[in-house]
Amino acid sequence: MTTLWHERPVGVVGLGLIGGSIGLDLMALGVEVRGLVHRPATAERARQRGLASQVSTDPAVLKGCAMVLLALPLDQLLEPSPDLLAALPEGAVIADLASVKAPVLAAWEPLVPHFVATHPMAGTIAAGVEAGLPNLFRGRPWVATPTLQTDPGALEHVRAMAVALGAQWLECEAHDHDQAVALISHLPVLVSAALLRAAEHGAEASPQAALPQLVRALASSGFADTTRVGGGNPELGILMARSNRAALAEALGYYRQALEGLEGLLKQHDWDGLGRELEACRDLRPEFL
Amino acid sequence: MTTLWHERPVGVVGLGLIGGSIGLDLMALGVEVRGLVHRPATAERARQRGLASQVSTDPAVLKGCAMVLLALPLDQLLEPSPDLLAALPEGAVIADLASVKAPVLAAWEPLVPHFVATHPMAGTIAAGVEAGLPNLFRGRPWVATPTLQTDPGALEHVRAMAVALGAQWLECEAHDHDQAVALISHLPVLVSAALLRAAEHGAEASPQAALPQLVRALASSGFADTTRVGGGNPELGILMARSNRAALAEALGYYRQALEGLEGLLKQHDWDGLGRELEACRDLRPEFL
Repeated sequence: MTTLWHERPVGVVGLGLIGGSIGLDLMALGVEVRGLVHRPATAERARQRGLASQVSTDPAVLKGCAMVLLALPLDQLLEPSPDLLAALPEGAVIADLASVKAPVLAAWEPLVPHFVATHPMAGTIAAGVEAGLPNLFRGRPWVATPTLQTDPGALEHVRAMAVALGAQWLECEAHDHDQAVALISHLPVLVSAALLRAAEHGAEASPQAALPQLVRALASSGFADTTRVGGGNPELGILMARSNRAALAEALGYYRQALEGLEGLLKQHDWDGLGRELEACRDLRPEFL
Repeated sequence: MTTLWHERPVGVVGLGLIGGSIGLDLMALGVEVRGLVHRPATAERARQRGLASQVSTDPAVLKGCAMVLLALPLDQLLEPSPDLLAALPEGAVIADLASVKAPVLAAWEPLVPHFVATHPMAGTIAAGVEAGLPNLFRGRPWVATPTLQTDPGALEHVRAMAVALGAQWLECEAHDHDQAVALISHLPVLVSAALLRAAEHGAEASPQAALPQLVRALASSGFADTTRVGGGNPELGILMARSNRAALAEALGYYRQALEGLEGLLKQHDWDGLGRELEACRDLRPEFL
């Protein structure tokens, strides 16, 4: 691993939103990209879109890669196929890009010696081979969660690539990362989904037959924004909840506490107290954005 | 009231987002608009922006108006000034435009004979004399909540104007309206505010000192969307909560139930059940938008 990361081919396993975007950016930098996908039709489309220099459904395409990026859905990542494992070049840096880190480390660190767990925080609703975009990572955080076993040289390889793609490199403990994404990414999905259900059930429970139609007619941009992530991809929601269950359950505890606080102020007619809470929220939000 | 609504001047009390937008649209239709505002500086700016044919801080400006639209903040609307009441032309149609209807009806129906309670469902975050926009109401619902006391001629006057501004006219019971906006407009504010607080408290409570910084660095578009209304204008939030307290408390009950349902599935590792819930949410959301 004394060569520079871009002097040898980079393998990308999966060419959806994340893998495809990485492929486009690496190609634009003149790096040779070897893409591995499941289905022939996906391979064909990935070639048409120019997501990689070479795209194949045969894991042998990864031969000769000094670095392989695993851009697979979380479930496939957590149960890697024997064919994929057998095809990973000996000595190559292997990095994943999934949104939860502790379970990925538990699955992969025992399997490959130069493993680096990372999470580029860039995404849109889109998925699949049509989703990849140029410059998706520019200015976005790209978190790595090295462990005591992580090879510093491998970590540096992945860091150099992420920085070349314009990302802001961050390092933290896997457990901290998973707690943070539970609070700011997985909790909002449940909070938002519950709002959709509450609006439906609250309207249906009313003795007024017109209410279900009325709530649907009157919902505006505030409701649309607050329910966006709750109305998103169910499979993704499940995978997140499943792989980050403990942290998400803890986050829900904090959420319930916060909501009960607001509800209490409302029930006590404590408008000054509610005002102070909403002011704190107004001041707090810009810190996150 | 046998004249057509646009043949005599229309008074608009308050020229912020809603009042100013109505003024611009009525002026574009060639209707004479008389604007009443509190402060001389606001009057000057409203004149410059062309929000009304005539703008004054003197309630006498409303003289001769066949219809007066009350575009005041909810607190001022619920406690109308004696000067304003004295200046409302006898026999004129008086309509309000506030986001809660039962308390407005309780305050105004005893005061003026031709009162019409309405709520144009159009808004942006902006407020004040600079906020008014042309065509704000086009294609948006404009809800009226007539009572047994409502004069049908007065209702028709306001309806004709709303339709001329491109709005979709809807009529329902005031109580139903207030229940509906509690679910789709006021509840989201508290749900969203609680998420901001939970992210803050959850990060601070962690034994990892890095977590508060980490959650702030990693928050992305999903968090931004879900917290938008919770990080909004605190005064507006309080006014809504205060004037629609009972309906909001009921809506919070439905919300808690929905959230506990999701939390239960998570705790029982019932991924099929959670999947069905999230699928229902995905299918439900388009019905509201």
